[in-house]
Amino acid sequence: MNEKPSFGVIGGGSWATAIVKMLCENLENVNWYMRSVYAVEHIKKQDHNPNYLSSVEFNTDQLNLSNDINTTVEASDFLIFAIPSAFLKRELENLTIPLHDKVVFSAIKGIVPETSLIVGEHFNQYHDVPMENIGVLTGPCHAEEVALERLSYLTIACLDEKKAELLAAFLSSDYITCKTSDDVIGTEYAAVLKNIYAIAAGIAHGLGYGDNFQSVLMSNAIREMKKFIKKVHKMKRNINDSAYLGDLLVTGYSVFSRNRMFGNMIGKGYTVKSAQMEMSMIAEGYYAAESAYKINKEKKAKTPIINAVYAILYEGKNPKKVFKKLVDKLD
Amino acid sequence: MNEKPSFGVIGGGSWATAIVKMLCENLENVNWYMRSVYAVEHIKKQDHNPNYLSSVEFNTDQLNLSNDINTTVEASDFLIFAIPSAFLKRELENLTIPLHDKVVFSAIKGIVPETSLIVGEHFNQYHDVPMENIGVLTGPCHAEEVALERLSYLTIACLDEKKAELLAAFLSSDYITCKTSDDVIGTEYAAVLKNIYAIAAGIAHGLGYGDNFQSVLMSNAIREMKKFIKKVHKMKRNINDSAYLGDLLVTGYSVFSRNRMFGNMIGKGYTVKSAQMEMSMIAEGYYAAESAYKINKEKKAKTPIINAVYAILYEGKNPKKVFKKLVDKLD
Repeated sequence: MNEKPSFGVIGGGSWATAIVKMLCENLENVNWYMRSVYAVEHIKKQDHNPNYLSSVEFNTDQLNLSNDINTTVEASDFLIFAIPSAFLKRELENLTIPLHDKVVFSAIKGIVPETSLIVGEHFNQYHDVPMENIGVLTGPCHAEEVALERLSYLTIACLDEKKAELLAAFLSSDYITCKTSDDVIGTEYAAVLKNIYAIAAGIAHGLGYGDNFQSVLMSNAIREMKKFIKKVHKMKRNINDSAYLGDLLVTGYSVFSRNRMFGNMIGKGYTVKSAQMEMSMIAEGYYAAESAYKINKEKKAKTPIINAVYAILYEGKNPKKVFKKLVDKLD
Repeated sequence: MNEKPSFGVIGGGSWATAIVKMLCENLENVNWYMRSVYAVEHIKKQDHNPNYLSSVEFNTDQLNLSNDINTTVEASDFLIFAIPSAFLKRELENLTIPLHDKVVFSAIKGIVPETSLIVGEHFNQYHDVPMENIGVLTGPCHAEEVALERLSYLTIACLDEKKAELLAAFLSSDYITCKTSDDVIGTEYAAVLKNIYAIAAGIAHGLGYGDNFQSVLMSNAIREMKKFIKKVHKMKRNINDSAYLGDLLVTGYSVFSRNRMFGNMIGKGYTVKSAQMEMSMIAEGYYAAESAYKINKEKKAKTPIINAVYAILYEGKNPKKVFKKLVDKLD
């Protein structure tokens, strides 16, 4: 790896756009891949992403934009993936350049549906990226607030903390504070699970439960998350650190979270299908609920909230009845 | 104590009114003291409290209303105090009936300013109530949602868990779930400290910090609370239980919380005095900040958030500057 490594961002959504903005504060050049030919042309001419965080103005001299993922991968030592987990496998099928000598950070916060693996494990098992080259970039962070340059804290996790520190240095700025961690598995699972809990919060809201109950739900959710992650990867961690509890709160209490919105519609009586069509966006927690439920069949952590969300989304159970039972399991 | 003990509620505000409502679900009679002669007369004639939670209709046959605290105290085996901590000492000066054989629960969530003691300790040291007769009734619970009969969880703490269970049984209903605990000191301190953190959340909001930062602030607040309470009273407790974390969240994330509102005004540039006058309500966290700060001078827990709130409220420091320093201490 060079002294001055090159960085590439994979994805054209709001989180990808926010990450490119953060990197542009510190780097002369950022490689940026997105699928949409239209969006790339628009950014080149109009200096902003037409579809996401369009208030963010780029200096296009800093951007090496491409619609070919291979161009971006080839040019980059560090890659940050920020596309929905449901599209990851398909996107990676276009790769002809190997990933095994790249440093790959996931900013995805999802489980790859086809393999039921978190993103880091997927890169490790299917693309031979060594675990010490795999990392996680996580919040608590709404991309919209990065656009507004509101103070936000990120956690950058990598088994090789040197790599985490390097990425952290290039993401930090007046409005971004970065912390590093070696808990790659735990931070990624936290980012995945919190979306399921945000769906639960949305369902509760849709069913008419109030703020008193929401706080009990979140207090149970963080305890449940702790148990789940401990079963999956036991190590010393403080579950109340920003990357776990903070990330849960910023999503669970946000009325703008897609996952919470999706849950809210389910609570209000929409079917899963109609809620998905209505939203025309991916609620990561939908896939995460199935994967987490399946993983936990083996791990056997006590996860009444995940089970409830799974029963509603995948077994067609009545949300009102499921929550009526769930509330007796909370305290 | 009788098999069927009698219950009295001290206070005429919204939380007192909510507690009386909960008890009325299970008891034939509830003794209820409030200062305002007008309010008592209004309740007797119109079946609701004119000033607080006025949507709650009482069956006045169940209420033994009084403007004389001694009448209510004399008639009750269990007393639940729900008046602002700033008025407690003055109110208790009217007592001619001793309290030492009463079971006294605090629903106050404040520190008695004159003695810098939490309410339970004040009753113990100044009114000879034995510690095993002292308890805490705590949330997470907005009184307004009790009025709407929205599902809420209470924690009832007493060193003598039998007494906690007894009160819990009389508070429980379709919409109230009670949990008992023996952590009288910890739950009361949590209820006190969370108001300081709600002020901090309000100041941050007033200064223009966003949701990303709020989640980091709350994640740091719960870790700070854990350290503080551990110094004051070390015992095995899960700080993520509803009585601690849930209570912090319901207040810190509520736009209706007086403490958050008070902080918001400070963040927007009001002086402490003008914010207090504008609100014409007691923000418990204002007194709590001073008491907690003083207590911690001896205990020496690491409490950057409490220190920041204290510096702003009591040392006239500039909120913007104080928060600029605070954010570097959070992670």
